[in-house]
Amino acid sequence: MTYTFARSMELFSRAAKVIPQGIPGHLTPVFTVPGSYPYFCSHAKGSRFVDVDGNEYIDYMCAYGPMILGYANEKVDEAYRVQAARGNCLSLANGLSVELAELIVDTVDCADWVMFAKNGADATSMAVMLARGYTGRDIVVLAEGGYHGTQSWAGTNHVGVTARDRADIVMVPWGDPDALRRVVGRHKGSVAGVMLTPYHHPVFEDQRLPDPGFWPEVRRICDEHGIVLILDDVRAGWRLDMKGSGHFFGIRPDLACYSKAMANGYPISALVGVERLRITASKAYFAGSFWCNAPEMAAAIACIEEMKRIDAPRIVSELGAKLTNGLAERARANGLEVVISGPPAIPFMRFASEKNFLRSQLFCGECAKRGVFFHPHHNWFVSAAHTEADIERTLEVADVCFGIVKDRFGS
Amino acid sequence: MTYTFARSMELFSRAAKVIPQGIPGHLTPVFTVPGSYPYFCSHAKGSRFVDVDGNEYIDYMCAYGPMILGYANEKVDEAYRVQAARGNCLSLANGLSVELAELIVDTVDCADWVMFAKNGADATSMAVMLARGYTGRDIVVLAEGGYHGTQSWAGTNHVGVTARDRADIVMVPWGDPDALRRVVGRHKGSVAGVMLTPYHHPVFEDQRLPDPGFWPEVRRICDEHGIVLILDDVRAGWRLDMKGSGHFFGIRPDLACYSKAMANGYPISALVGVERLRITASKAYFAGSFWCNAPEMAAAIACIEEMKRIDAPRIVSELGAKLTNGLAERARANGLEVVISGPPAIPFMRFASEKNFLRSQLFCGECAKRGVFFHPHHNWFVSAAHTEADIERTLEVADVCFGIVKDRFGS
Repeated sequence: MTYTFARSMELFSRAAKVIPQGIPGHLTPVFTVPGSYPYFCSHAKGSRFVDVDGNEYIDYMCAYGPMILGYANEKVDEAYRVQAARGNCLSLANGLSVELAELIVDTVDCADWVMFAKNGADATSMAVMLARGYTGRDIVVLAEGGYHGTQSWAGTNHVGVTARDRADIVMVPWGDPDALRRVVGRHKGSVAGVMLTPYHHPVFEDQRLPDPGFWPEVRRICDEHGIVLILDDVRAGWRLDMKGSGHFFGIRPDLACYSKAMANGYPISALVGVERLRITASKAYFAGSFWCNAPEMAAAIACIEEMKRIDAPRIVSELGAKLTNGLAERARANGLEVVISGPPAIPFMRFASEKNFLRSQLFCGECAKRGVFFHPHHNWFVSAAHTEADIERTLEVADVCFGIVKDRFGS
Repeated sequence: MTYTFARSMELFSRAAKVIPQGIPGHLTPVFTVPGSYPYFCSHAKGSRFVDVDGNEYIDYMCAYGPMILGYANEKVDEAYRVQAARGNCLSLANGLSVELAELIVDTVDCADWVMFAKNGADATSMAVMLARGYTGRDIVVLAEGGYHGTQSWAGTNHVGVTARDRADIVMVPWGDPDALRRVVGRHKGSVAGVMLTPYHHPVFEDQRLPDPGFWPEVRRICDEHGIVLILDDVRAGWRLDMKGSGHFFGIRPDLACYSKAMANGYPISALVGVERLRITASKAYFAGSFWCNAPEMAAAIACIEEMKRIDAPRIVSELGAKLTNGLAERARANGLEVVISGPPAIPFMRFASEKNFLRSQLFCGECAKRGVFFHPHHNWFVSAAHTEADIERTLEVADVCFGIVKDRFGS
């Protein structure tokens, strides 16, 4: 028995009247056949969510990263609730901002100080401004296919972006230190910052881990040229290493951006930095109405402490390895070859024999109809709330769906 | 007996080690004499908050706008809690996004569609991009002294802002349609959008309500030149008129930005627009990790419904009038002249005899020490949770503090 999605479709019709695209942004429906995939969620608990048609899924998107301890985690939610009862957004700062900053300084190895915001993109945008403010230079180097948000300088949204918005942005391929050195040489004395994700996680493409020489060479280039090295750890942060993904890959950036997994889904982000950037950070005026909200800070403290207590990076890495090894095995057993890339906790899977993701769409669609939620062209996320039983059930479903792909496509 | 602030000061010393400025952004301490003013909040309920030293205040900052129904409002908090127990940030959209969008389309007179985000600045930045995308032009006109966030184009933060970030921004004085017409003429065919607040609310200056002819003339200029008229209603939104501050002042903008009072302090913002901008909005890719969070949407629904039910704009306007009339009277009775400007619900007060705000600082500092929280150079906010008794008590305290100002300064 497979799932149907009548109420999702009905709700989408209503949504399309009052919301451009019906569902905008990263949650916009990605499957080509309407009615073959859930569009709207009802509720979620642990590793699973239930859609508006009552179908339950083991979820490997984890809200695109924020969910790390399981949906509706009791410790994090309780910390939020207790603080919310004391007020959410207040007229003064809250002592929790100090506790949380101290906790992050103790936790993340490149953090001598912390500034809080709401979006990951707030942190990346502040980082760009601090790099420019610190160096007095304009150019910022980003990697092709990298994602740092949808603001005008970031290159993801293309509507209403002016030539000037991107004039001081220079792109290099991720993971290529020679290309970076050439670009920095070409713009000698003008590069303020280099912003990179700890490993490369584009969409529609294999993820790429750094070669052993990559990060030391990036650090060397930045040091030689007085460039601020910015690590965008929004997506991977705390899934690889509690000390930060910089530590995991052996690099100490000057600034690093955190958000997603920081408070298990409550909206908060952080820009952390090393000592020499502190004065520049003190001079900048960054503000948002909800940036000092205390309950999100309480949730972040509870989440970070819990991730440390259970060693969440180890758990998600081990579960991710079981999942990805199992998928590769089941694919092979069905006469298919899949390419799985990236860290096991944040894996990306594609079929080796195609570039158009038709097999991926079929596979993910058939898995969804059987209670396993994957994404066809975006990396997945494993949480500490997934269980061995979840992985086993997932592999049973995957086995069936690989068979369907094999039947439809032959290879 | 007046208040002391030892624990605030102690906490600030800790904060300064791990957070640049200790308290960044709009909550950064504004008084010049450390130890004369609370820095950190403990908890809040209704119209009042208690600082970390245990001092209680009647609060006229309302978290700089978000608090409209009172801190820890039970209806809004309950709506948030119920939804949070079903998961906060999810892998699919939530039906509440549709309900909330429908409610806003029914409520705000210029809203044919709605997009959600977290910060007010997300909404203003999206509006700028949509205006540019819709018109194919680059220039955006803003008003001098206006506030639209701290992102690089907005002109508030000056650290790390490049010449190009602001090259397509043209400034005009707020409320001067002739200046706007001249600027639009000078950049004929190049102006994408005009972004203005519904009335002018700079810091350190009197607020300014629009002359009767202002908004119709702005609308006429925009229509003649095919310019997108953007109303930044983040600060004033829903304190003047449930249909939007555009409706209050008799103007229908093409895009309008909402946030602060939208969910009584839970982090959410919205960009609303008229029909002809819908396709452009559909083409843009705007996303944030927490932009589809369901609990904030539940809170916004509860908050908007409650504001409508009690007619919050009428309540805050009447209470604001009592407060401001009372303050003007007490000042006069003490031989002082104050200038109170802006809507009574969002008033700004200064002393007529000074430009350096020394009297304002003394007055607000002395009020704080007696349990009334005002800001010396930023507009205040009145909430629907303030009571007649709050206002009376406030005026008693103000009377004493006007006397102190009179004694110190003579006039």
